[in-house]
Amino acid sequence: MLEKEYDGSWDKIKRVLGGKGAGLAKMYSLGIPVPPGYTITTAGCNKFIALGNVFPPGMEEQCLSALKRVEELTGKVLGGTERPLLVACRSGAYMSMPGMMDTVLNIGLNDVTAQAMIKLTGDARFVYDSYRRLVQGFGTIVLNIPDEAFEEPLDEYMKEHKYAYDNELKAEDWIRITDIFKGVIKSQTGSDFPQDPYKQVELSTKAVFLSWNNKRAFDYRNVEGIPHDLGTAVNIVAMIFGNMGDEDSGTGVAFTRNPSTGNKEIYGEFLFNAQGEDVVAGIRNTLPLQALKDKLPQCFDQFIENSKRLEDYFKDMQDIEFTIEKGKLYFLQTRNAKRTGLAKIKTSVTFCKEGLIDKMTAIERVTPKDVDSLLHPMFNDSELEKAIKTGKLFAEGVNASPGAAVGRIFFDADKCKEMADQGMPVIMVRRFTKPDDVHGMIASKGLFTAEGGATSHAAVVARQFGIPCIVGASEIQIDMKNLTVKSRGILLKEGDWCSVDGTTGKIYAAKIPTKEPSLDDQKELLELLDWCDELREIEGVRENPNGPTRGLQVWANSDKADDALKARSFGAKGIGLCRTEHMFLGARSEILARFIIADEEEVKTKALNELQALQTSDFEEIFTAMTELPVIIRLLDPPLHEFLEDLVSLTEKVATSRALKIDDEKNEIMLSHVKKLHESNPMMGLRGVRLLIVKRELVKMQVSAIFNGACNAKGKGFVPIPEIMIPLVSHKGELDSLQPEIEELAAVILKERGVEMEYKFGTMLEIPRACVVSGNLAKSAQFFSFGTNDLTQMTFGFSRDDAESGFLLKYINDGILPENPFKTIDQEGVGSLMKMAVKSGREERPMMDIGICGEHGGEPKSVEFCSSIGLTYVSCSPFRVPIARLSATHAIIPLLRKMKKN
Amino acid sequence: MLEKEYDGSWDKIKRVLGGKGAGLAKMYSLGIPVPPGYTITTAGCNKFIALGNVFPPGMEEQCLSALKRVEELTGKVLGGTERPLLVACRSGAYMSMPGMMDTVLNIGLNDVTAQAMIKLTGDARFVYDSYRRLVQGFGTIVLNIPDEAFEEPLDEYMKEHKYAYDNELKAEDWIRITDIFKGVIKSQTGSDFPQDPYKQVELSTKAVFLSWNNKRAFDYRNVEGIPHDLGTAVNIVAMIFGNMGDEDSGTGVAFTRNPSTGNKEIYGEFLFNAQGEDVVAGIRNTLPLQALKDKLPQCFDQFIENSKRLEDYFKDMQDIEFTIEKGKLYFLQTRNAKRTGLAKIKTSVTFCKEGLIDKMTAIERVTPKDVDSLLHPMFNDSELEKAIKTGKLFAEGVNASPGAAVGRIFFDADKCKEMADQGMPVIMVRRFTKPDDVHGMIASKGLFTAEGGATSHAAVVARQFGIPCIVGASEIQIDMKNLTVKSRGILLKEGDWCSVDGTTGKIYAAKIPTKEPSLDDQKELLELLDWCDELREIEGVRENPNGPTRGLQVWANSDKADDALKARSFGAKGIGLCRTEHMFLGARSEILARFIIADEEEVKTKALNELQALQTSDFEEIFTAMTELPVIIRLLDPPLHEFLEDLVSLTEKVATSRALKIDDEKNEIMLSHVKKLHESNPMMGLRGVRLLIVKRELVKMQVSAIFNGACNAKGKGFVPIPEIMIPLVSHKGELDSLQPEIEELAAVILKERGVEMEYKFGTMLEIPRACVVSGNLAKSAQFFSFGTNDLTQMTFGFSRDDAESGFLLKYINDGILPENPFKTIDQEGVGSLMKMAVKSGREERPMMDIGICGEHGGEPKSVEFCSSIGLTYVSCSPFRVPIARLSATHAIIPLLRKMKKN
Repeated sequence: MLEKEYDGSWDKIKRVLGGKGAGLAKMYSLGIPVPPGYTITTAGCNKFIALGNVFPPGMEEQCLSALKRVEELTGKVLGGTERPLLVACRSGAYMSMPGMMDTVLNIGLNDVTAQAMIKLTGDARFVYDSYRRLVQGFGTIVLNIPDEAFEEPLDEYMKEHKYAYDNELKAEDWIRITDIFKGVIKSQTGSDFPQDPYKQVELSTKAVFLSWNNKRAFDYRNVEGIPHDLGTAVNIVAMIFGNMGDEDSGTGVAFTRNPSTGNKEIYGEFLFNAQGEDVVAGIRNTLPLQALKDKLPQCFDQFIENSKRLEDYFKDMQDIEFTIEKGKLYFLQTRNAKRTGLAKIKTSVTFCKEGLIDKMTAIERVTPKDVDSLLHPMFNDSELEKAIKTGKLFAEGVNASPGAAVGRIFFDADKCKEMADQGMPVIMVRRFTKPDDVHGMIASKGLFTAEGGATSHAAVVARQFGIPCIVGASEIQIDMKNLTVKSRGILLKEGDWCSVDGTTGKIYAAKIPTKEPSLDDQKELLELLDWCDELREIEGVRENPNGPTRGLQVWANSDKADDALKARSFGAKGIGLCRTEHMFLGARSEILARFIIADEEEVKTKALNELQALQTSDFEEIFTAMTELPVIIRLLDPPLHEFLEDLVSLTEKVATSRALKIDDEKNEIMLSHVKKLHESNPMMGLRGVRLLIVKRELVKMQVSAIFNGACNAKGKGFVPIPEIMIPLVSHKGELDSLQPEIEELAAVILKERGVEMEYKFGTMLEIPRACVVSGNLAKSAQFFSFGTNDLTQMTFGFSRDDAESGFLLKYINDGILPENPFKTIDQEGVGSLMKMAVKSGREERPMMDIGICGEHGGEPKSVEFCSSIGLTYVSCSPFRVPIARLSATHAIIPLLRKMKKN
Repeated sequence: MLEKEYDGSWDKIKRVLGGKGAGLAKMYSLGIPVPPGYTITTAGCNKFIALGNVFPPGMEEQCLSALKRVEELTGKVLGGTERPLLVACRSGAYMSMPGMMDTVLNIGLNDVTAQAMIKLTGDARFVYDSYRRLVQGFGTIVLNIPDEAFEEPLDEYMKEHKYAYDNELKAEDWIRITDIFKGVIKSQTGSDFPQDPYKQVELSTKAVFLSWNNKRAFDYRNVEGIPHDLGTAVNIVAMIFGNMGDEDSGTGVAFTRNPSTGNKEIYGEFLFNAQGEDVVAGIRNTLPLQALKDKLPQCFDQFIENSKRLEDYFKDMQDIEFTIEKGKLYFLQTRNAKRTGLAKIKTSVTFCKEGLIDKMTAIERVTPKDVDSLLHPMFNDSELEKAIKTGKLFAEGVNASPGAAVGRIFFDADKCKEMADQGMPVIMVRRFTKPDDVHGMIASKGLFTAEGGATSHAAVVARQFGIPCIVGASEIQIDMKNLTVKSRGILLKEGDWCSVDGTTGKIYAAKIPTKEPSLDDQKELLELLDWCDELREIEGVRENPNGPTRGLQVWANSDKADDALKARSFGAKGIGLCRTEHMFLGARSEILARFIIADEEEVKTKALNELQALQTSDFEEIFTAMTELPVIIRLLDPPLHEFLEDLVSLTEKVATSRALKIDDEKNEIMLSHVKKLHESNPMMGLRGVRLLIVKRELVKMQVSAIFNGACNAKGKGFVPIPEIMIPLVSHKGELDSLQPEIEELAAVILKERGVEMEYKFGTMLEIPRACVVSGNLAKSAQFFSFGTNDLTQMTFGFSRDDAESGFLLKYINDGILPENPFKTIDQEGVGSLMKMAVKSGREERPMMDIGICGEHGGEPKSVEFCSSIGLTYVSCSPFRVPIARLSATHAIIPLLRKMKKN
């Protein structure tokens, strides 16, 4: 009942009364004018269902007495012949399920009350339009008559009378149609439309209860993860008519702040002589609220005042529906407003500064998606619609790296780089990408591939560099001979324009304008993220035996000094993964290839020396950029054949040359090398530590470059903190095989250079076995970093490239797997191994740094999981750092609140 | 001291006195004549080393008094001028380290005692030969002078005097040489050879102690896994001379039973007028023991009587060294005899039947290697030597499947099959093998490959079928165009003879005769294995919460009825793995290929129906063979592309055709299919359950065949027990996606056929994640079977084919990994996951069957591990079943003994 002030929490109230009922009750108790009415609780609904769709004992009596009270408050009477009470019967669940359940309006109208209403309003058209709506709504919702049974005769009637739109129909038309509709009910059910208003109320209530379990609602709850046992409340509310005149009636919708920008300004639309749905339906041009202020200043002031009270009460921006009937203002609904990410951040920070909420609440209100929305260029929605309407939607794939990119397509990394260097915006198109494509990828505005999944090479690199990217667009057909790509009947040639929406996974064969947001303008976001860091720095916000009890740190993955600087500006507290193989790309890959295929020791050494010189200055720059922060450098990880040409394409070339008896010594030699390096499962082959053990000269080269680079940086006054990380370790023997050599070499260089420097030696945990034996590994390794991409691959036995563009999609679509484990850490499997590894590792070496540097390090759910298992830091792409800072703080808020209470 | 009777266990005594010392002490205490002497304990050695190579306080005094006692017992005096005592100083560790440590003989000789000895023996030649040996031994062992320093002047002397052999030198020669050797010591060390016999004893003792840590011994212990802190004992024993005349002196070596056959007959060799080493060195033709019996019957009787006492005391066959000096018999050494596997089995069973040992002891004495030695044909050793001497050793590789095979080489599976069908013995030669080669492999007597490791396809299949096989013989060069294989300068053409020794990994370019043993003759082995089974059937021999407390069962992997029968005859109690893909090979692969590449539904269905009919009768035969025993059938596991041609070779063909503008539609079409199915890491790609989920028609076909086959068998009076196993499961969702469909189909078929039948639904555990979440999987799966090949691959992230022929060899050679995890279960990593999986699985479903069907199921150490973690059964190749039965019993003997005690 509206009069009752529930003393439970707002959440509890909503559980009992549903969102709409609770809002009405709250407004009533705050003294805000609402239409009189009552709410039947969700418990009533559940009881009704439990009893086999029968009202529980006593419910009818309670409803009748509530209805009586509504009649008193309105001075109207249900079925009354003078001032008849009309009510709406609306569903309203605890959690919003928009459009899923039913509502019946204008209950109380019958042949008698209709006449009374005409007398009262002098508007027969309005009354019979309302009446026929009741008959129709009652017919479809309560009596389950299909919509068409009403729509068809109405269409016929309009055709017959040459009406084009509803609003051309006059009173007598609606009277006739009401009769027709009554006939529909009679013929469909064998019974008459019930004239008894009480019967109408009763049956409508039942129908709304039943709609809780209609298929639509049931499926929706399944998808959204809403429990099926919540039930819906039913709100019986007096009808308010905003359509009782142009002068003193109308209806509006308003936000208490600007929902796009979050600015502190009331933002709404109003229509005179209209009902609520009319504003939303857009049948007439709406007016700004100023129009209301001009015409009905008192109503406006009352609206503003009450809106402020609602905002203060709910401590959040409100989305309000209101109606004015003959100069009297009613609030029909209030709820926390949906808004853009930008507005969410701004309002949260503002409310906090206004003292309405604390920092924790402000942080909690902002979602990772809100932050993400600010970090990438976007297309203009209307332009996208236009493109779709004009048939420019070219293909769809996996939305691997968000953001909008527009450019001309090219199919080859070198060509992409070349065109980009000339200032052309480039979109790279590839079947899939390899490390050797990275220089072209970096130069491109965006890219899309026919193969690969969300953690394929293309996807990982694209996210790393914040390049919009779509992978696995399997419908496209690339013709490398003619340099074209075809899909949905459209053929794009090299150099054609194309737009890539990495946020939605859609590719357009058109040049669509984008808007480019800048983080520098995001004062509130920066402030919020600083609050996040501040809270995570509090001692004790995590229970973490043998590990840090402050919150997670956020580091970044970065292989270049300018990226490192960007990461630092985004708030990264270290580099968690510097992939040294990324330094061998572009022109440099040729040097590495020379090392790989050379037979003479001399040639090999020369190539290594060249690489060492280049890497030394790379490292110097990174250490300089990250001065005073740790930089974890992973020694060479990928298999060497990745730096050479592909076996199949080489085979093709050589077979062709041989058939044509063309001398092709270069390719013949290369083929023999590539064959030698060929592996049946390269992901589990000669790479990582295995390669380092077999090719120790690479270790020597890289370690020399690291320490010489660090010494150079130190010589210029910077403070390098190098940490050397060994990839793909599965057995302690592997660490022990390399560690002494590395430490000896470091000692020699530091002595030579006359420099003192602390550094650490650690290992990736990316092989299941490494997690199982981490206690043993911790005897040698001073830190761990989870490589959850590989760990997920091996733990599931899913080759990520093959799986994500293949069966894994089916697995996720069919619900065989709840989520893509390459996007979100699989807590049950991979997560269990991680937990185990953290525990054993820290038992051997308490407080050791354990981080994560896989793709998951920037994914909110995974970040929260990493916090919960006690990691020291997450390391992610620079562009994901802000999101990780937020998510890492979300993870600790529960304990933070508990600490605050005590 | 010899007089002390140690009351500890024999093992403890050996730890203190070393093997040799303990044997002497024991013989002494049994009243068996041994040369007087004393033993310095291993503790003394360790103390000596701990003190920095200094005798611990009191040791010298104790030794002197022991020496005095030896003088009393012999009536000789060290350094005595009338009856000088000569002693040997011999090393003797707890564990046998043959030839690794040092021994000095003839200590006590000097210029004075030599004359006394001549007086005593009248044999100056003997005395000075002994004297020069002492000088030489002392020089090399005690003084570390290189052997050559003595050998060179001796050679020169002999050349100068035109002697060809040692035994041509006369007394005066040895006297001269003794002088020359003394000169060597003087010139090399600056000091004279010590004339003081006490000094000789002291320095020799020290030298033997020091030899414990010489590089040779240290390395040997590392390899054999012998601890470095055991130390060696030193035995100072009076010299006994069997070379004091042709009539009443001599030396012999004897086994108390026949070491080749195990038959109960004393078996030995004897030489008159000789010393121990002469028998072994084979410088003269030895005589049978009968010769001793004829000439010195009393000595012979005494020898026989004492030998029997020793055998009775040690309850094992003895290997005895003895010497007769002037009619007096001395036992110099006794130890448990080394013997062939056959003899080990026979003697163990015989001793048990003679009541000397119990069944447990008999079983413990037999090693898996002993059993293995009886299970494969073998080459005749002398023939092998001949082949090597004549340069026929062709190549060496990994000894993947033991046994000897001889045949003509062929390079193609079809050709192998064709020639074998004509009755020709065939050796298959391949770069590597694929499932499509299996029909050729099965038809071949043996095979060898250039690539792959011990668990490569070739190796696994070969072991499965007991075909001798060598893989990874990387030195061979196969020329598929000319059908030749080249290695070590030898060129073999198609059809040439070749011999493959799968036991040693050696390939010979020759036709070497083999001997083919038969298990049917192995009465004692069969009896022993029955004892094994009997002991494992005792309730309580394993502590196994929620699991069976009887011992492991032994099942077999088998895909064909005749194999199943063989397995059953070897004692298998079920089929743990029937690989259904093996039923698609040979001619049938064409049918599957049709299914794979067909576009029309009709063609697909027709192919499936053909396969179903074939599989139905396959299953009927297997169920018939295994009536009343469980048969676990694994649904299709390998990726489909394995049934098509290889991408690279197809690419080559098509590129060639295209270049030459030849129309090659068939290959073009096949290439497009193969490209579609191509995966970057097929081992982690679309195979196993993933394939079954994507291609459900295969599941339907196979399940129909299984139940129809079972119904057919039942109709003929057999009792089929089918169990359906899903491979490569990582998530419960995968099981749940297939289980209802399978159960429904089974119900339909059983109803149609009017048959009632129990069956089980289970899963492989071969993905790390499956082990982690096994508790959850056990909700759906009724049994588990560890696939440790794949589990090892994924847990280590080692692609087995790539790794075993690549870095893994280096890892094992360099000691980075202690063992090849594909041969022996890696207990620390893979084993931990298995333990975890067993625990969680049985917590959810107590007493559930959990087995292992990987290659490890027949490897002794792994079998013992499987027993220790509570598995229900191990399943291995039929040929490994006897070994597994033995190993599984070894595993439970400790608890069995404990039970017997209580």
